[in-house]
Amino acid sequence: MSNPGKIYLIPTPIGDTAVYDCTPEYNKNIISSLDYFIVENIRSARRFLSKAGVGKPIDSLEFAELNEHTDKATIGNIIAPVIAGRDAGIISEAGVPAVADPGADIVAIAHRNGIEVIPLVGPSSIILAVMASGMNGQSFAFNGYLPVKQPERGRRIQFYEQRAVKERQSQVFIEAPYRNAKLFDDFLTFCNKNTLLSISADILQPDQYIKTKKISEWKNEKPAINKRPAIFILGSAEN
Amino acid sequence: MSNPGKIYLIPTPIGDTAVYDCTPEYNKNIISSLDYFIVENIRSARRFLSKAGVGKPIDSLEFAELNEHTDKATIGNIIAPVIAGRDAGIISEAGVPAVADPGADIVAIAHRNGIEVIPLVGPSSIILAVMASGMNGQSFAFNGYLPVKQPERGRRIQFYEQRAVKERQSQVFIEAPYRNAKLFDDFLTFCNKNTLLSISADILQPDQYIKTKKISEWKNEKPAINKRPAIFILGSAEN
Repeated sequence: MSNPGKIYLIPTPIGDTAVYDCTPEYNKNIISSLDYFIVENIRSARRFLSKAGVGKPIDSLEFAELNEHTDKATIGNIIAPVIAGRDAGIISEAGVPAVADPGADIVAIAHRNGIEVIPLVGPSSIILAVMASGMNGQSFAFNGYLPVKQPERGRRIQFYEQRAVKERQSQVFIEAPYRNAKLFDDFLTFCNKNTLLSISADILQPDQYIKTKKISEWKNEKPAINKRPAIFILGSAEN
Repeated sequence: MSNPGKIYLIPTPIGDTAVYDCTPEYNKNIISSLDYFIVENIRSARRFLSKAGVGKPIDSLEFAELNEHTDKATIGNIIAPVIAGRDAGIISEAGVPAVADPGADIVAIAHRNGIEVIPLVGPSSIILAVMASGMNGQSFAFNGYLPVKQPERGRRIQFYEQRAVKERQSQVFIEAPYRNAKLFDDFLTFCNKNTLLSISADILQPDQYIKTKKISEWKNEKPAINKRPAIFILGSAEN
C-alpha cells in the first residue's frame, strides 16, 4: 500500500489585498506543486489560484467542494485521493483555512488516517485583531458569532464580559458585516462602562479602522463599521 | 501640535525559517521606512533587521527595549517619540508581536493616545497549531502556560478539559520546551481517555511534528518533543 499524500493548508487574502502582500512567496512553490484542492467555494478558489500564479492552466486542476452545505457522508470521497497517495491543498473563502470552516473536518480525518498536515502562513483576522487591540494577549478566546436574538444575545454578551474580567481573558467575536452596527449598540447596552471594546474593520486594507476604547468612551463616537468585515474584542481594563 | 506617528506590528520568523519564507515581502517596505523600534530584545531585533534586508546600516537605527524586566514607569519614555510624530515598529522574540508579550502594553497606550496601530502578517504558532489540529476552530481559547506545580496543574488541566468538552472550545497551551515531556505525561494522567490532544512541535520547520490523537491513543506513543518549541491543544472529540 502506498504512502498517503500530504495536506497543505493554504491561506488566501483578506479583503482586496494582493496575494503576495499578505502571504509569503514561499507558499507559491507549494501551491504550484499541487493539482487537487479541497475548497469552500470552487469559483473563489479558481480566482485565487489565478492570482497566485500557479503556472498551470486552472482547468487542469481538480477541485472538491466542502462547505456547510456539503453532505458529511461525502467527506470520505473527498479525502480518498489523499489516502491513496495524492497531495492536496485546502483553501477557504478568506484568510487561514481549517480554523472556523469545514476544512477542520478534513484535517481531523487526516490525523485519523496518518496523513501529514502542513499549515502555511497567511493573514488571520483573529490574530491580527488581537495583536492590534492592545488587550491582554496572554489569554484570549475566539467565540465565533454571538446569538442573533434576544434575550440570549444580551445574556451571552454579559457572560463573556464576566469571563473577560474574572479570567483576564480577551473575548473575540465575529459578526455578519450588515449586522455590525446592531452588535455595536448591543455591546453599549449590555456591557459595563469600564469594559474595553476593540473594533478592527477592514484589517490590512488602506481604510483599515482599528480602535480600542472603554464602553463609556464609545458612547461618544459611533464608528462607521456597518457592512465592513470586522472583529470585535471585549476585554478587561486591568492587565 | 504635530500628528502622532504610527505603530507597526512587525512579525519575525519562528524557528530557523528564512524571513521571507514566512512573512510577505510587503513587510520589507514598511520595515525599511522605520528608524525607531520597540523590541523585546535588542540583539535579536538587530539580527532580524539584518536578515530582513532593511537597506540601511543597523547602527543608524534607534531601539528601545521593552520586556518583562522593564520598569513599567519607563513605558511613557518609550512611546513619547511616537506621540511626538515618529513612526515605530514593535518586534518581539519570535512570531507575531503584541499577543502574549509586553508589546501589548505599548499598543494599549497607543490607543489611549490616538496613535494608529497597523498589524502586519506573519507566523503565529497559535493559529498555525489551531489550523493543523483539525479541532473545532469555531471556538478556541489560548491560555498561555499552565501552573508549574501540583496540585494546581492537574486541577487546571481538568478545568480546561471540562471547558473544552462542555463548550466545544479547543484549549491551547504553551510550555517551556524543556518541560514538554512532563506536560505530555500530565495530560495523560489528568485527562479522560477520549479527550483529543493535539501537539504541534517545530511548526514550519523541516522536522515539523503535528499530530492529533485521543489521550488513550497517545498512551501507545510518546512523541519526541522535549526541548522543541511546541503548542498543545485539548479538545472535544465531538464537533
